[in-house]
Parts: sequence; C-alpha cells; structure tokens
Amino acid sequence: MLQFGKIAIIGAGNVAYTLCKLLKNKGIEPYCVFVRNAEKAQKVHEDLGVDVVSSYEKVLESDLAIISVNDDAISEVATHLVEYKGLVVHTSGTKSAELLNRSMRFGVFYPLQTMSKTREISFEEIPLLIYANSPDDVEMLSQFAKRFSNKVEFCDDEQRKAIHLAAVYVSNFTNVMLGIGDKLLKENGLSLDLMRPLVMEMIKKSFEISPEKALTGPARRGDFATIGEHEKMLGDNPDELAIYMILTDYIIEKYQKNEKL
Amino acid sequence: MLQFGKIAIIGAGNVAYTLCKLLKNKGIEPYCVFVRNAEKAQKVHEDLGVDVVSSYEKVLESDLAIISVNDDAISEVATHLVEYKGLVVHTSGTKSAELLNRSMRFGVFYPLQTMSKTREISFEEIPLLIYANSPDDVEMLSQFAKRFSNKVEFCDDEQRKAIHLAAVYVSNFTNVMLGIGDKLLKENGLSLDLMRPLVMEMIKKSFEISPEKALTGPARRGDFATIGEHEKMLGDNPDELAIYMILTDYIIEKYQKNEKL
Repeated sequence: MLQFGKIAIIGAGNVAYTLCKLLKNKGIEPYCVFVRNAEKAQKVHEDLGVDVVSSYEKVLESDLAIISVNDDAISEVATHLVEYKGLVVHTSGTKSAELLNRSMRFGVFYPLQTMSKTREISFEEIPLLIYANSPDDVEMLSQFAKRFSNKVEFCDDEQRKAIHLAAVYVSNFTNVMLGIGDKLLKENGLSLDLMRPLVMEMIKKSFEISPEKALTGPARRGDFATIGEHEKMLGDNPDELAIYMILTDYIIEKYQKNEKL
Repeated sequence: MLQFGKIAIIGAGNVAYTLCKLLKNKGIEPYCVFVRNAEKAQKVHEDLGVDVVSSYEKVLESDLAIISVNDDAISEVATHLVEYKGLVVHTSGTKSAELLNRSMRFGVFYPLQTMSKTREISFEEIPLLIYANSPDDVEMLSQFAKRFSNKVEFCDDEQRKAIHLAAVYVSNFTNVMLGIGDKLLKENGLSLDLMRPLVMEMIKKSFEISPEKALTGPARRGDFATIGEHEKMLGDNPDELAIYMILTDYIIEKYQKNEKL
C-alpha cells in the first residue's frame, strides 16, 4: 500500500487518460476513474482496464482525488466533494486552487505538458507544478509527484497562471508559426520537413543562450529590402501578412530599444 | 585533387566562417578566403588557419567561388568576377541567382540553417538548396554539396524565396514567442527552462502529425474565459497583448473555417 493511499481520477480527457496510464506504468492501480458519459466510460474501461464509476460513492472513499476535467466543469465536480476527507486537486493551468475550497484539503497538480491519448511521453522531465492548502499536503503531493517526475515545483496560483500564459506563447503560438510555414511551403510544392533542422537548432540555441541572443533574420538585422519583398510575397495572404508585420515591428522596436540602452 | 578543384570563399560572416570550418573538417583546404576588412582578415586567418586574401587575383584562379557576404554586397562582389571562368555561387536565401549573371557560370548554394561562429552544428541533416544556370554545373554543385549533407535539393529562385519567407515564421518568429515567454516568466521569478519539455514535445508533434493537428490551448478550444483572463494579465504589456490578440483571432478564425468545411 502506498503512503498516499487510494487514488481516484475524475475525467476522461487527454490529461486524465495520460495520468491513468502513468499510474499504471508505475504499478499504481487507480482506485477508480469517474466518467459521467456512458460511452466514454466504456472506452476508458476497455482501453485502460481500470475500474470506471459513474457515481461519487467510490471517489469519496479515496485518499487523493485528481479532478482532470474541462476548466468550466471543475466547480460542478467540486460540489460532490464537499464532505470528502482526502486531498482533492485539479490539473488546470489557469484555475485557482480556491475553486476547490469547499473541501477541507485541496490543491493543484498541474503537469506542464501537451498531452494526447495516442502519444507516449516521457514524464520524468516534465515539470509537475503542485500546490496544497496545508504544508502536510504539499509534502504528500510532492512525494507523490516525485514518483513520476524529476522536476516537481511548488507554485502558487499567480505563478501557475503566468506559466500557463507563457505556455500559450511558447507552445500554441509557436505552433501557429509552424502552421504558417507549412502553408507557405505547400503553396510552393514544398514540405515543412525541410525546416526541421533549422527549427531544432534555433530552439536549442534559444534555450542555451536565450531567445534574444539567438535571434537572426531580416527584422533583427534591419534588412528592410528583404522585409519589403516578403510583404509583397504575402499579398495573397492578408492574415499572415498582418502577423508578419506586427512581429517584424516588435523585433525592430525591441532591438532598437536594447541598443539604445 | 577534388573534381570540383580549388575553392574560394568570399566573406567573413557566420556563413562564410561555418563553410570554411566545414571544408576543413572534410579535409578540403579552401584555396583562399577573400576578406576586405583588415581586422576581420587577421581574425579569420588566426581562427581558421586559412589563406586570407584582400585582392581578387587568387579568387580568379579558383574553380568554385562561394560569395557569402551580406545580401546588399553581393552585386558589388560580382563586378569583380565578370571574367571569372569558374562557377560562382552566392549563399543568400532571398537574392536571385541572376544577380551573378555577368559571370558565365553562376548559381546558388544556400544552407537552410541558422549559423553562428561559436556553435558547432552537424551539417549532414541540413538541407543544402542548390541552383546553377547549366545542367553540368547543377551536377557539379550537387556532387560538392553531397559531401556535406544528405539533403541536397535543387531549388529555383521562387522556391528558395518561399523557403526563406517560411523560415522567418518557423525560426525568427518562433524565437520571438520564446522571447515573450521568457519575459513573462522572468516577471514572475521563473525560468524559461521550465518550458523546454513542453516546447520540444509540441515541435516534435507538429512535425510528426502536422502543426494543425498538434495545436492545443485556449484559442483552439474556444475557451474565451481563459482568453479574457490572459488579456487582462497582459495589461502592462501592450505589445505582447497585441500579439496575443492577433494570433488568438487567427487560430479561432482558421479552425472555425476548417470546421465549416
């Protein structure tokens, strides 16, 4: 028996799924997985071989309940856990821990990673950002998280929200840039795959020496001839042109400011 | 003696530097490196132990001249090579091969990578995009390029320009996103390093299943509550807020359009 006892997971989305698999990989059988939707419940049971429940009885018997549902549904789930004696956490990057404060013991267990049901990811390097409303539960949650990751960090609501906002830029918006690249290359019968070494090197370099120092390109060197040509080439793509212009201006202004300092 | 004979490099920038090192690593001694600026010439000679020249005499004796200078300086260099009997190429992503058409044999040798003097990069995976104005020289340049890379591609001006434009998005603008993430994290006493697993997984996923399918986040799922909160959090960062808004709108519109199809 583990020191953190019986674990209940609530939800059937990508994060809930990944957590279930993760527990099982570590030899920890989830005590139960709560899934309201019957069809999804069946699928989770078949895919993961866990005990799937659709009422809260068994959840209330657990020692740690991990709510991994859409942000908007967390409050509703919390109403069922007012009498809960265990520690209840959610896995949201944006929602306050206080959303669960009608339970005695509450917190957050936020894995900073993009997840999907079909991809295996290595968890050891993934930051697990934890919070709990008592030092004992912080310690308990930290011990639990360290079973899966080498990067467990205590994080209050404000820091976690800042991290989530930063993640939108470094992950979602970076993805958009790859998407635009993909589109422009396809229009010319070329494949995004050509870009892989360039992207990998730029990312590596940015993490090693800082994004600012790693930046190259026409905007960075104030090459207005090339910028003008690019803007002309984007004539048929007004949305992508607008993005080109705002980001080019951002780079030019930022580096001019830095050079004046 | 190599089949492509004596090689001259013109320039002392990051690309010229990297090419020199690359040739030497492959046991090919550059015939000469032309550097106009005396101070830079001295540095190149000391760093790389190559024969550095400041007049074009020796360049004119070579069989392949690689012009690796700023885009704006290519034309000036070309005026010295009108009588050149060898193949002259430039390494620019944006400039037309025709810029060199006063020489008999001309072309392009464009390595699709970000380079700096101090970083060692593995060249084998880097696309080398080549062009020449005769089939014989295409073949010669291709043989030469294959000494260094497994990804040698013939590419006309239009394709190369499209690639360069796409590279601005996938490399420079992606870098800007990492820079904004870095800034927002620093404002909260946190380090960009926290983001490395997330960024790496998202990039990997985007190349494997396409950026479009790999996209997650509030804009993708139409989570306007979180978007609103993020916009509030960016109140003190108007430039970053403007970027947040334009990219969020771009995602929302694009995916709505796709879902309607």
